Amino acid sequence: MNSPLSNLPIFQTRWVWLVGAGPGDPGLLTLHAVNAIQQADVVVYDALVNESILDLARDDAQLEYAGKRGGKPSPKQRDISLKLVELAQAGKRVCRLKGGDPFVFGRGGEEALTLVEHGVPFRIVPGISAGIGGLAYAGIPVTHRETNQNVTFLTGHDAEGVVPHAIEWDSIAKGSPVIVMYMAMKHAHTIAEKLIKAGRSPEEPIAFVCNATTENMQVHETTLGSIGDLQSLGLAPPAIVVLGEVVRLRSALDWMGAMEGRILKVDPLGSRQSPKSA
Amino acid sequence: MNSPLSNLPIFQTRWVWLVGAGPGDPGLLTLHAVNAIQQADVVVYDALVNESILDLARDDAQLEYAGKRGGKPSPKQRDISLKLVELAQAGKRVCRLKGGDPFVFGRGGEEALTLVEHGVPFRIVPGISAGIGGLAYAGIPVTHRETNQNVTFLTGHDAEGVVPHAIEWDSIAKGSPVIVMYMAMKHAHTIAEKLIKAGRSPEEPIAFVCNATTENMQVHETTLGSIGDLQSLGLAPPAIVVLGEVVRLRSALDWMGAMEGRILKVDPLGSRQSPKSA
Repeated sequence: MNSPLSNLPIFQTRWVWLVGAGPGDPGLLTLHAVNAIQQADVVVYDALVNESILDLARDDAQLEYAGKRGGKPSPKQRDISLKLVELAQAGKRVCRLKGGDPFVFGRGGEEALTLVEHGVPFRIVPGISAGIGGLAYAGIPVTHRETNQNVTFLTGHDAEGVVPHAIEWDSIAKGSPVIVMYMAMKHAHTIAEKLIKAGRSPEEPIAFVCNATTENMQVHETTLGSIGDLQSLGLAPPAIVVLGEVVRLRSALDWMGAMEGRILKVDPLGSRQSPKSA
Repeated sequence: MNSPLSNLPIFQTRWVWLVGAGPGDPGLLTLHAVNAIQQADVVVYDALVNESILDLARDDAQLEYAGKRGGKPSPKQRDISLKLVELAQAGKRVCRLKGGDPFVFGRGGEEALTLVEHGVPFRIVPGISAGIGGLAYAGIPVTHRETNQNVTFLTGHDAEGVVPHAIEWDSIAKGSPVIVMYMAMKHAHTIAEKLIKAGRSPEEPIAFVCNATTENMQVHETTLGSIGDLQSLGLAPPAIVVLGEVVRLRSALDWMGAMEGRILKVDPLGSRQSPKSA
């Protein structure tokens, strides 16, 4: 048996590593991510990064918060990128720790481009994205052979905070049996209207998975046409929203629920001719 | 500093854990995956799982190969699923280790449904999917604010080995600025034709990333209309194919190439008015 944390790269000073911390559960960190956090002189982290993940940093490491907090405005993206440049140029090993994956609606590309512009060497450490791993904790697979051979991931708001103009809702509604939406809680009703108008059935199952993979995870299953008042249900961001038949699989695949006694359904899609009992 | 591998769940006998091993680099294993492999009595693994990952198993663990090898036919999916049931019912801790993520074109849902049918308790351990993490190693982000606010993942062949009939190529071509294709090498030319017919430009950049994240990684960049003879270029599966403007970002974000001396481009999308030199 090898030691899993041996043979991982040495973090050189003056480098920035852009690291995905995954959706929340520290067990979903990759070995590369742990290796990065443990060696870093500075960890520049986002709002979505779990406190117990920061505990992996060296006792003398500097922890820099770069997310939105309370009512205060969040630092500008350009300022964060330049901060990374400044820290690296000051001779630090800089771990830029982002929730999920840096390249899935994470602005990792923008930050890396600023590093390139200033000649700062960098490494990318991918992370588990909430739209895949977070949904798996809710018992929802993003693909399933019986239901879909493609899946679309989209962001529910753009830099200005509104529903992105560039998204072709009609084509997505027609072409994507499963749609996984990031940061879509605020505009969920607007998006649902667009999708129904584009031909999706109001009866189609949709799920809201809040604080995915953390101990505060909440899952709300409903239909596209009857989303209702999410706030009054106690639901709040961060959330992943998923639309499609795969949501029905949750009645069979809710493995976390099963640990607490939920009886799993044998035939969630109703597709078997003579279901056997479990 | 905490020990990153403490506080992870105990693997009970008679359980199956469906575990994503990531795209190849052992450093992309999650802590949960390492924890699973280290405790397992039996590891049932696929062709895409790296040998050095299997080295993490206990010396007395049973390793069962469940993939396609040489010219031999691969075991039927139903047989693999029933094998998992049988091993669990024989009192084993069964780690079902799959390349990438079990729920991203990985048939994890099907295997889990068979477990439910037979009353075998299970856990899902998400993994880094090659379509995200593998492309990150090639310096290609699947999303970038300037280029796309959605991305579609699809499989290039179905259970019968042909291009999936259920995929709505016209809608995907129209609605998805970035298309990430799994198992699409064999039918790359057919798929390219469909996409061009549906309106995508033959000039659009496309990349083939073979053996992503491993030491045998190969990246081939070309355009949708001039894919050419992939075999004569020495390219072979497993591969991820990615279409879209994000491919251009590789000239700036190829961090692995930069480690070997590649000079990174400061303005890969040509979108800055007065590019500064690096």
